[in-house]
Amino acid sequence: MERPRHQGMAKNTYMRWRLPLICLLWEVAMIVLFGVFVRFGPEADAHWEEEKREMNLTSDIENDFYFRYPSFQDVHVMIFVGFGFLMTFLKRYGFGAVGFNFLLAAFGIQWALLMQGWFHSFKSGKILIGVENLINADFCVGSVCIAFGAILGKTSPIQLLVMTLFQVTLFAVNEYILLNLLHVKDAGGSMTIHTFGAYFGLVVTRILYRPNLEQSKDKQGSVYHSDLFAMIGTLYLWMYWPSFNSAISEHGDAQHRAAINTYCSLAACVLTTMAFSSMLQKKGKLDMVHIQNATLAGGVAVGTGAEMMLTPYGSLIVGFICGIVSTVGYVYLTPFLESRLHIQDTCGIHNLHAMPGLIGGIVGAITAAAATEDVYGKEGFIKAFDFTGTYQTRTASVQGGFQAAGIVVSLLMAFAGGTLVGAILKLPVWGDAAAENCFEDDVYWEVPEDEESDAYHMHNPEKAASP
Amino acid sequence: MERPRHQGMAKNTYMRWRLPLICLLWEVAMIVLFGVFVRFGPEADAHWEEEKREMNLTSDIENDFYFRYPSFQDVHVMIFVGFGFLMTFLKRYGFGAVGFNFLLAAFGIQWALLMQGWFHSFKSGKILIGVENLINADFCVGSVCIAFGAILGKTSPIQLLVMTLFQVTLFAVNEYILLNLLHVKDAGGSMTIHTFGAYFGLVVTRILYRPNLEQSKDKQGSVYHSDLFAMIGTLYLWMYWPSFNSAISEHGDAQHRAAINTYCSLAACVLTTMAFSSMLQKKGKLDMVHIQNATLAGGVAVGTGAEMMLTPYGSLIVGFICGIVSTVGYVYLTPFLESRLHIQDTCGIHNLHAMPGLIGGIVGAITAAAATEDVYGKEGFIKAFDFTGTYQTRTASVQGGFQAAGIVVSLLMAFAGGTLVGAILKLPVWGDAAAENCFEDDVYWEVPEDEESDAYHMHNPEKAASP
Amino acid sequence: MERPRHQGMAKNTYMRWRLPLICLLWEVAMIVLFGVFVRFGPEADAHWEEEKREMNLTSDIENDFYFRYPSFQDVHVMIFVGFGFLMTFLKRYGFGAVGFNFLLAAFGIQWALLMQGWFHSFKSGKILIGVENLINADFCVGSVCIAFGAILGKTSPIQLLVMTLFQVTLFAVNEYILLNLLHVKDAGGSMTIHTFGAYFGLVVTRILYRPNLEQSKDKQGSVYHSDLFAMIGTLYLWMYWPSFNSAISEHGDAQHRAAINTYCSLAACVLTTMAFSSMLQKKGKLDMVHIQNATLAGGVAVGTGAEMMLTPYGSLIVGFICGIVSTVGYVYLTPFLESRLHIQDTCGIHNLHAMPGLIGGIVGAITAAAATEDVYGKEGFIKAFDFTGTYQTRTASVQGGFQAAGIVVSLLMAFAGGTLVGAILKLPVWGDAAAENCFEDDVYWEVPEDEESDAYHMHNPEKAASP
Repeated sequence: MERPRHQGMAKNTYMRWRLPLICLLWEVAMIVLFGVFVRFGPEADAHWEEEKREMNLTSDIENDFYFRYPSFQDVHVMIFVGFGFLMTFLKRYGFGAVGFNFLLAAFGIQWALLMQGWFHSFKSGKILIGVENLINADFCVGSVCIAFGAILGKTSPIQLLVMTLFQVTLFAVNEYILLNLLHVKDAGGSMTIHTFGAYFGLVVTRILYRPNLEQSKDKQGSVYHSDLFAMIGTLYLWMYWPSFNSAISEHGDAQHRAAINTYCSLAACVLTTMAFSSMLQKKGKLDMVHIQNATLAGGVAVGTGAEMMLTPYGSLIVGFICGIVSTVGYVYLTPFLESRLHIQDTCGIHNLHAMPGLIGGIVGAITAAAATEDVYGKEGFIKAFDFTGTYQTRTASVQGGFQAAGIVVSLLMAFAGGTLVGAILKLPVWGDAAAENCFEDDVYWEVPEDEESDAYHMHNPEKAASP
Repeated sequence: MERPRHQGMAKNTYMRWRLPLICLLWEVAMIVLFGVFVRFGPEADAHWEEEKREMNLTSDIENDFYFRYPSFQDVHVMIFVGFGFLMTFLKRYGFGAVGFNFLLAAFGIQWALLMQGWFHSFKSGKILIGVENLINADFCVGSVCIAFGAILGKTSPIQLLVMTLFQVTLFAVNEYILLNLLHVKDAGGSMTIHTFGAYFGLVVTRILYRPNLEQSKDKQGSVYHSDLFAMIGTLYLWMYWPSFNSAISEHGDAQHRAAINTYCSLAACVLTTMAFSSMLQKKGKLDMVHIQNATLAGGVAVGTGAEMMLTPYGSLIVGFICGIVSTVGYVYLTPFLESRLHIQDTCGIHNLHAMPGLIGGIVGAITAAAATEDVYGKEGFIKAFDFTGTYQTRTASVQGGFQAAGIVVSLLMAFAGGTLVGAILKLPVWGDAAAENCFEDDVYWEVPEDEESDAYHMHNPEKAASP
Repeated sequence: MERPRHQGMAKNTYMRWRLPLICLLWEVAMIVLFGVFVRFGPEADAHWEEEKREMNLTSDIENDFYFRYPSFQDVHVMIFVGFGFLMTFLKRYGFGAVGFNFLLAAFGIQWALLMQGWFHSFKSGKILIGVENLINADFCVGSVCIAFGAILGKTSPIQLLVMTLFQVTLFAVNEYILLNLLHVKDAGGSMTIHTFGAYFGLVVTRILYRPNLEQSKDKQGSVYHSDLFAMIGTLYLWMYWPSFNSAISEHGDAQHRAAINTYCSLAACVLTTMAFSSMLQKKGKLDMVHIQNATLAGGVAVGTGAEMMLTPYGSLIVGFICGIVSTVGYVYLTPFLESRLHIQDTCGIHNLHAMPGLIGGIVGAITAAAATEDVYGKEGFIKAFDFTGTYQTRTASVQGGFQAAGIVVSLLMAFAGGTLVGAILKLPVWGDAAAENCFEDDVYWEVPEDEESDAYHMHNPEKAASP
């Protein structure tokens, strides 16, 4: 049942040869590069028994797998179900939300394993991978999922793959600068994932500005059940965020602490989101858009500080503030950005990731600058900030300065990268839909008959007659 | 598209200032109290390296985080997705079910960390928290989610927050009496969580009795897809219940055993639920209400006994019985309670939590009373019931007596507490909806256009014309 | 609102006495058999303290629970939510998909604990169970869920229970032959679970061939939201498959490696599925059927090889191929099988489990045959293939031969077993529905009013008037 208006499409959205070609060629490239470079790390390799002996480990439980695998799976759920379903709130873009997120993330994790591997796990010509690499690849792809939120419904799957290729590359470079050159701590990625990913996506959507987008305005809303599907995404992100922020922290207290801080921040964030959602609406009713998104801002904003001694009440304060900032952003800032700055931000990532990400970077810088041996203990202080080797003499306040520099670098990378990638995506060869067909699965997906078709009831003879 | 009948609302459900005020004030109170009292426990504190040395631990894997964090995440999912989605079965109360559950649980876990902390983790003026505290806070909130099930659709979010405040407080007192004064075992909370939570909620709903509730009877049912959303909740509760009952058991065999017993009980429960659901219906068809709820009764009923040597076949027997009791309850008891005793129990928590909770308390008492050194081993016997210090001389049968006393105390606390809180919630200041607007998201939520609105198809010109 | 066509049912689908009787009798049988045979294994028994001393274990963390429980829970989710929701794609069979899967799996795990227990965990007259048994029981039931996919919508719950009883039995026999007699490796079950389960199901559905099934053709499709529900199943299967393939591997490197290989294979599979889904459709649009199913083929196909040194790029190649094979199968093979061979395969398990399962068996055989001490290390080689005791002298190429024999045995068992069980299920006593009532929940379930009933809007006076 093709809707007539689609026959008037101005743009060529035909994917039949372009999408398969890119998918197949790039996957072949992945196979070749993996064949040349990627091998199992010592803890996943069959030589583990010898490794154990060398490292004087008495038990298999010391394998990093057991420290991190449960958190990895939680992160994995966040990327594929969390982000995927969070974006199903649109009434007719559920397939695109879940399906394209699936596609770009599945490609992105492979490319991220390579890019991050070259920077961080490269030994004698090979990238040696283990569970920590899998987590980091998911993290890297998380930043692409965030950017996807800004352009949701307005781009072709090819554009998304192209964006993923570039964004993963730039992510890895930025991450290398922050973690290795600036020696910055950012275990939950307030800077590397959220600030970078969100501003990158916002710049891209600015460049792809569509002046006639109000033509598909009727499809930019939700329906009752699409809002419930989106809540599945929200809740999995919210529940597993403690795993996200603790997944690659140091073994022991750091993982433990990061989980607790994140749990606290998120809990506080729910209350201020509810408060402001009701307060900013004339009728005082709650808005599902806020509940679905702003409740998560607390997790974003402790992404840097969670593994530090932020303390539970510090986390509550951060969550408290971010629920407010994010909800206010949805009410006032998003319309402003769209009308004045021509930034069309479908999911409101500016409110959920950009601002809380910045806050997170700042909180991290302050927490680092305020660190003392008294609070951390002598050994704990060194371990928490890895003040060893070249960094043996770095002080807490200097570390705070470098943390702040990390925010700036992430922003610069996001703006420069987003501009470049936005310009590439603007080329008229990628098969994006016309403005009146945005937010509509029909363009790229075989869509089944509507729910009220003949299967449900027979009272519409014309419809039942159509194929 | 405001429905006309809402304009005739008799009651003031306007939340704009009341809800924000409570959310913000209470969250500020949490921050202050956390600031004064809550600190990281030794396993989450940066001094962990010193702690490890003192305790002669050779590996970070000995941190309690690795023993309990996977179970914590499963419990977390049960509270937020499990309970939240289980209650989405109502056709037009999905936002309230998931959203209010989210709100009350996010507040409740903070208050529970404090209340339980003062009773159990208070050291030199500070509450020292770790992953076990997070699990216990989730548990405590679980009892509020249960009570929420009885009043689902009939209360304002403010009433829910007030109830949470009081119920968490009373839960912590009851738990302290049981665990510390009576020295009772109740790792999965048959008594502290289910019996207490359910009878508390039933008393509250009795006091809030609405004589004209049949005015919203058309909204008390489900639709096809709302039943599927509810099954998400059901399955996550069912699958993760072994984690629930084992999450805070002793390390090693007790956690292992609790998971196995719960798995067995739940499996048996599914079969008897299906059997009685079909048998008690004239046409022999299965009823989704039973499948969504009664299949879980087996998990409730081994909440006390699961960590004991209940044995797999003992668990099967418990599950067998509870599937029957619970399903029969839905068919015969719920209508009776409503018509005769004026207990309007939206989700049927009497069948899912109250009766199975009582059975669970009794099973626990019997299993404890029947324990022998032969079955548990000399050390195992002492460890299982913590017969050390003051309790060194307590025998199994005395323990059984105390377990039984625990049931009685929980019931008394539930009745007294429920009466108090019910009376408070009956005050006409909390903004609950009129009887004809119960079970309707429209009262407290911005609700999108219906699914068959113009976005889906254009065949209804009048509707398309409305805003 | 009974639809008139149901009143013309040719077959007796009345379940009221038959279903309860079978459920109750069989559950009683389980209780008796568990009572006689099943006890806690040493790691779940209260004598664990003594066991620890005997085995010189210094920490509770050495309990197998901590090595496997997180993976167990992931597998558990795959069986109940993964398979259950994957099959909800049908527009009017969501209750049956989730509910019957729940029923058969809950019964199946109990029977599997017994059957597998007798073969593998039988010591001095008792079956001693621990977390590994729970995983294996879930695995065994997984093969039944697969077979269920072929006959989805066409059988009564009684037929499903009967099939489960027989299939679990045959699964355990086949597994015993492969693992114990042939000494074959198959940790993720390419042969024992997928090949066996799928061909078993295909033979059963062939024997139950319904010539008039086109009468219910309108119900064999999906609707928009049913496709989204199915994606929940897909994503959980996809995300947790690394846990599935690694859950019962040896502690340490083998579990770690199996997870990485599976992650890689699945990622590649998504890209080739998307490519071929678009390529094989005239309009170049993506088909949800492929995305829901073929993306998972990569997990199936490394079920045998994942714990071996398949290497990440080897896994990518396997995933690459399987995405193509599976998608092509959906487009060309499924219609062919139905029209020519009279194999009506509702979910297309031939494409998702049968072919990828065979590929998985072959990949495993080749990987085993190609194994060298150089690649695995001397100890690693022995450990990976358990070349100890009687098998001390077995070489890699001989192992490869036995692996290949395992495929043949699994196929033979599937064909013989499927024929037997198909013939039993064809008996006219099980209450299956007539062809025109297939794929319709109404037959066995109380189904609520349709979504567009009076609760949603009042514009249809005739409908509002019906009960």
